Amino acid sequence: MCRWVAYSGSPLLIDDLLYKPTHSLIAQSMHSTLGAETTNGDGFGIGWYGVGDTPGVFRSVEPAWNDRNLRELARHIEAPIVFAHIRASSGSPVQQTNCHPFRYGRWLWMHNGVIHEFASVKRDLALAVDPSLYAHIEGSTDSEVFFFLALTLGLEDDPPGAVARAVGLIEEIGRRHGVEHPIQMTVATTNGSSVWAFRYSSEHDSRTLFYSTDVSTLRELYPELEVLSRASDESRLIVSEPLRDLPGAWNVVPESSYGIVQSGQDELHPFTPQAPSRPIAVPALS
Amino acid sequence: MCRWVAYSGSPLLIDDLLYKPTHSLIAQSMHSTLGAETTNGDGFGIGWYGVGDTPGVFRSVEPAWNDRNLRELARHIEAPIVFAHIRASSGSPVQQTNCHPFRYGRWLWMHNGVIHEFASVKRDLALAVDPSLYAHIEGSTDSEVFFFLALTLGLEDDPPGAVARAVGLIEEIGRRHGVEHPIQMTVATTNGSSVWAFRYSSEHDSRTLFYSTDVSTLRELYPELEVLSRASDESRLIVSEPLRDLPGAWNVVPESSYGIVQSGQDELHPFTPQAPSRPIAVPALS
Amino acid sequence: MCRWVAYSGSPLLIDDLLYKPTHSLIAQSMHSTLGAETTNGDGFGIGWYGVGDTPGVFRSVEPAWNDRNLRELARHIEAPIVFAHIRASSGSPVQQTNCHPFRYGRWLWMHNGVIHEFASVKRDLALAVDPSLYAHIEGSTDSEVFFFLALTLGLEDDPPGAVARAVGLIEEIGRRHGVEHPIQMTVATTNGSSVWAFRYSSEHDSRTLFYSTDVSTLRELYPELEVLSRASDESRLIVSEPLRDLPGAWNVVPESSYGIVQSGQDELHPFTPQAPSRPIAVPALS
Amino acid sequence: MCRWVAYSGSPLLIDDLLYKPTHSLIAQSMHSTLGAETTNGDGFGIGWYGVGDTPGVFRSVEPAWNDRNLRELARHIEAPIVFAHIRASSGSPVQQTNCHPFRYGRWLWMHNGVIHEFASVKRDLALAVDPSLYAHIEGSTDSEVFFFLALTLGLEDDPPGAVARAVGLIEEIGRRHGVEHPIQMTVATTNGSSVWAFRYSSEHDSRTLFYSTDVSTLRELYPELEVLSRASDESRLIVSEPLRDLPGAWNVVPESSYGIVQSGQDELHPFTPQAPSRPIAVPALS
Repeated sequence: MCRWVAYSGSPLLIDDLLYKPTHSLIAQSMHSTLGAETTNGDGFGIGWYGVGDTPGVFRSVEPAWNDRNLRELARHIEAPIVFAHIRASSGSPVQQTNCHPFRYGRWLWMHNGVIHEFASVKRDLALAVDPSLYAHIEGSTDSEVFFFLALTLGLEDDPPGAVARAVGLIEEIGRRHGVEHPIQMTVATTNGSSVWAFRYSSEHDSRTLFYSTDVSTLRELYPELEVLSRASDESRLIVSEPLRDLPGAWNVVPESSYGIVQSGQDELHPFTPQAPSRPIAVPALS
Repeated sequence: MCRWVAYSGSPLLIDDLLYKPTHSLIAQSMHSTLGAETTNGDGFGIGWYGVGDTPGVFRSVEPAWNDRNLRELARHIEAPIVFAHIRASSGSPVQQTNCHPFRYGRWLWMHNGVIHEFASVKRDLALAVDPSLYAHIEGSTDSEVFFFLALTLGLEDDPPGAVARAVGLIEEIGRRHGVEHPIQMTVATTNGSSVWAFRYSSEHDSRTLFYSTDVSTLRELYPELEVLSRASDESRLIVSEPLRDLPGAWNVVPESSYGIVQSGQDELHPFTPQAPSRPIAVPALS
Repeated sequence: MCRWVAYSGSPLLIDDLLYKPTHSLIAQSMHSTLGAETTNGDGFGIGWYGVGDTPGVFRSVEPAWNDRNLRELARHIEAPIVFAHIRASSGSPVQQTNCHPFRYGRWLWMHNGVIHEFASVKRDLALAVDPSLYAHIEGSTDSEVFFFLALTLGLEDDPPGAVARAVGLIEEIGRRHGVEHPIQMTVATTNGSSVWAFRYSSEHDSRTLFYSTDVSTLRELYPELEVLSRASDESRLIVSEPLRDLPGAWNVVPESSYGIVQSGQDELHPFTPQAPSRPIAVPALS
Repeated sequence: MCRWVAYSGSPLLIDDLLYKPTHSLIAQSMHSTLGAETTNGDGFGIGWYGVGDTPGVFRSVEPAWNDRNLRELARHIEAPIVFAHIRASSGSPVQQTNCHPFRYGRWLWMHNGVIHEFASVKRDLALAVDPSLYAHIEGSTDSEVFFFLALTLGLEDDPPGAVARAVGLIEEIGRRHGVEHPIQMTVATTNGSSVWAFRYSSEHDSRTLFYSTDVSTLRELYPELEVLSRASDESRLIVSEPLRDLPGAWNVVPESSYGIVQSGQDELHPFTPQAPSRPIAVPALS
C-alpha cells in the first residue's frame, strides 16, 4: 500500500507540502500511522503543472526520506497542482516505471491500495485496455493497468464515470477468478484544472482519505500557521493521512464516495462501481 | 542492440571471462566495434549455475564499466556455465527487469537485436504468451516477450523448434502489421547443461556471432595464454564479438543457423523460422 | 545507527543467515525492535570469504528488503565467514562508499553507532590517519574513518589493542572539542580467520550485542531447527539483535567488552579505551 | 575527464540547452568528439537559479542519455543561469557526491580535467582546506577539493584571484610530490550573477573551451534558429565543445586565460597561477 497527497490551489512551493508539515509525506515514508504498512520506502514520485503542455513527473526508486534530489526540487518548484506519492510495494518490482503518479497526456493518476490476486487477473485486465494504449503501459503494477482501464473507459471525458466503469470491470473480472473482494483503493487523478479523488473498496472497508477544511476557516482556527496566509481561499489538500494534528482541519472522505476539487464550489458524491453492460469475452490463447 | 557472451566448460572465474580479455565484454560496454551502437551502457546482467536449483542472476542498471559490485562478484564466482549481457536500449526503460539474462525456472535467455516496431505488435505478441506465463513477464522489452513466446511454444522440450516457432510467429504478426523485416536477433539460451545459440534476421543480414575454436587447438596456437591451461577440452565461448584479436580462435556462426554446445560433440545447424500452422486469431477489445 | 550480523563457522548459505530466520536482518531492515531506529533502509552490505585473496563485498544503496540482487546472491553464495550490515544513516549521504562492511586487504569492518559531532572532529581524526592510508578513505562516514584509525594504530597485528587505541584517540579528540560522550559503538572486524566484536560507548550505555550459544547446546534445545544440523560445533553468530526468539540461544555481550571468535576456544574480555600516550598535535591551516 | 556547458542570459528552458542542439551535451554524453574520452557516462548534474536563496542542484549517477528525470526537469525548468556537466570518472567512485556542479552557499563549481596523481597529493590538499570547510567535502573527487581550496583562498570575494592561488597551491604541492604537470582544467564557477570560466593546464596544453559569439551577430548569421529570437542580447554560452556546427558561432577561449560573463561588457583575461607566498607546512602524523 502507499501514502499520497494531492494539492490544488495558489502556487505552492513543494517544500511546504512535502517537508514542512509535522507529519509530512516524507515523515510518513518512514513512519506512517494510518497506512497498511508503517514503512513506505519502495520509491516515490511527484507530478506538477508548470511550463510545458504536460505535467512534470519526477520519480525515483530510493526511499523519499533520503533522496537529495527530491529535497532540491521541492525547494525550487512551485505549482498550483501537485501530486506526491510514496510507495510500499505489494510485490511488483521497485523501479521508476512502477512509481506513481502515472502520466498520460495532461493526466496524472495515483493510487493507494491493491487489485487483489493481480497475477491471476492481470492478463484479462490488460486485454481490456484499448489496443492503441496497450504499448503505453511501461511498468508492472496493478495501479498502472487500472489507470489505462480508466483511460480506455473515458477518463478524459467523464472521470467519475470512467473510474466507476473501470472498478466495475475489475470487480467483474476478479469475481470471475474467484476473488471475493477484488479492489481496495483511494485514487487521485487530475487534468491540471480539477482534481478527482475516490475512496472505495469491494469490502466497503476502504483505506483512509481526508480533505482539508476550507482555507478561510483554517486561517481563523490557526492564525499562526504562516503557510495559510499565502494560500488562496480555494486551496485544498486531499491526503491519505493528515499532515499535521490540527483539530478541525481534516474531514473524512466518506466510505464509497468521490470528491471534485475545482474552480468554484468543490463537490462530494457517492461512488458506485458500474458493472460492464455486456459480458466480457476473455480471449484465450489462439 | 547489445553485446553478449556465453561460456560453457570447466568452472571459470567470471573475472577471467569479463575483465581479463583485451576486448572483454566490459571494454565493449564502452567501445564495441562490431555492435550497432558503440556504447552499451544501459544496464547489464550475468547469470550462472552454482549452488541452488535455479541459476543465479545479477542485473544492474548502471553501465557495466563502472559497476563495483560486478567487479566484486566476478572475482568471487566460478561457474561452468556463465551468461553475460550488456545493454544498449532500443527505447524501453533502463531498469533491472529489462536487463538480460532473463530467467524462468532453470532456463536463462539473452538476446541481441530487436523486434521491429515493437509498440505496434506488442499486444498481439503478449496475447500469444500462455496465460499461465503472462504474469511472469516483469519488464517491458521485446526480448523478454520473445523468451516467453519461446517458453509457450516448447522451449523446455525442444529449444531449436520452440525458437523457430516463436520467430515464425513474430514474423507472421509483424508482417500482418506491415513490418517488412520483423526480427533481428542473436539469442543464447541454456538449461544449465547445454547452450543453444541462434543467429537470424528477417532480412538475412544478422548481427555478428562467433564461437571459439576448440581448446586443444587454441592451446597449440597460444601456449602463452594461461587461462587456456585451466580450461577443459570441451570449454566453448559464443560471443557477439571476439574478446581478443587472436587469429584462428574465432569462427563465424553462419547466417541463419544455430549451434548447440553440449556434453559430447557440439553441433551447428541451419535455422529456419516455422510459421504458425493455423491463422492466429488476434482478439480485439471486447 | 544500524544493525549487523557476523557469522563464523562451517560454510553457510547466506540465505540461511539473512532471509530464513523469523527476525532476520532483512526483517530488521524494516522493523528493528532493539535499534535506535526502527527502519534501517539507507543501504546495506555483505562481505564474505571465498575464492580470491581478499573477501568479496557487495554493497547497495537500496533498502535491503527489496534488493533483488541481494536475494539472488544470498541463494548462491556459501561462506565460512559472513558479515552483513543494514544502515540507518545518521546524516552522511546514502552511497555505496558509505555502506558497511568496509574492506582493506583481507580485513572487513562494520560498525553500529556514531562518533558524536563528527563534523566538528572529522578533520582532526582524518589527520590522525596514516598518510599512506588517507587516500584509501572513499566515503564520508565516521565508521570508515574509525576503521582507518584502527588500521593506522595496528589493527592487522593486534586488533583489540588497535581498537582500544582508536577509541582512546576518538575520545581524546572529541573531548577537546567539547563532546561529552564522543563514541557509541558495536564493531565487528575480521581477517578471514578470526572475528573480533566490541561493545562500548563513552557513556557506558552501549547498543545491544549478542552472541549465540554454542551449537551443540543449541541442537539439544532446538532439535527441529534444520540449519543447526548442518552447522559445525564451532559455528557462532554475533548480532546486534537476536534473529529468532529462542530462549537460551542468545547471550548478552556485556557492556564494555569484546569477544574473539576463533579456531579453538572463543574468548570474552573487558574493553578499555587507551588514551594516546602523548599529546596529539592538531595542525592548523598553514 | 568530462564535458560541461554554462549558460547565462535571458531565462532559458533547460531542454533548449541540453537536448535540442544537434551536438547537445546529452549527445556528447555518448559521443563526445573533443573530449579526452568519447563516453561521458559516469553521472551528471545540473545547477540553476530560481526560487530560493541557493541554486538548485540535480545530480544523478546514471548516464545522462537515459535519465528520464533529467528529461522531465529539462522540460519544466527555466533559468537565467544554468550549469550542466557530464562525467567521465578518472577513477573516483560514481556517486552523487562526486557529480558536478558542486555547491556552497550561492556558488556553483564544475571542472573538466584532473589533478594528476591525486591519491598522492590528496591529503596535503585537503589539509590546506580551511578547517571550518573541511567537513563540507562530501565526495572523493579532485574537483571538489579544488573547489574548497578556491573557497578557502577567497573565491567569494575575488574569483580570479582565488582560482589563481588554488592552482598555484596545487602546482606547488604536486611538484613537491614529483608530479611534472600537476593540473589540467577548464573550470566554470558562478554566484548567480556573473560566470567565471578558466582554461589552464600546467603543461599549457589545455582541454578545449569555447564561448559563443554575441547574440545579435548570431541572429544575423542564423535567422532561422528560433531559440535565438527568444535570447536576450547579453545571453552567452561557454562550452567544452560546440553544441552545433555553426561557422562563426564559437570562439576559442585562448590557452591560459579566463573570461567573465556579467551584466555589461564581458571580459577575457590571461590566467596565471599564483604560487603560495610562504612555504606550506605539511603536517605529518602526530
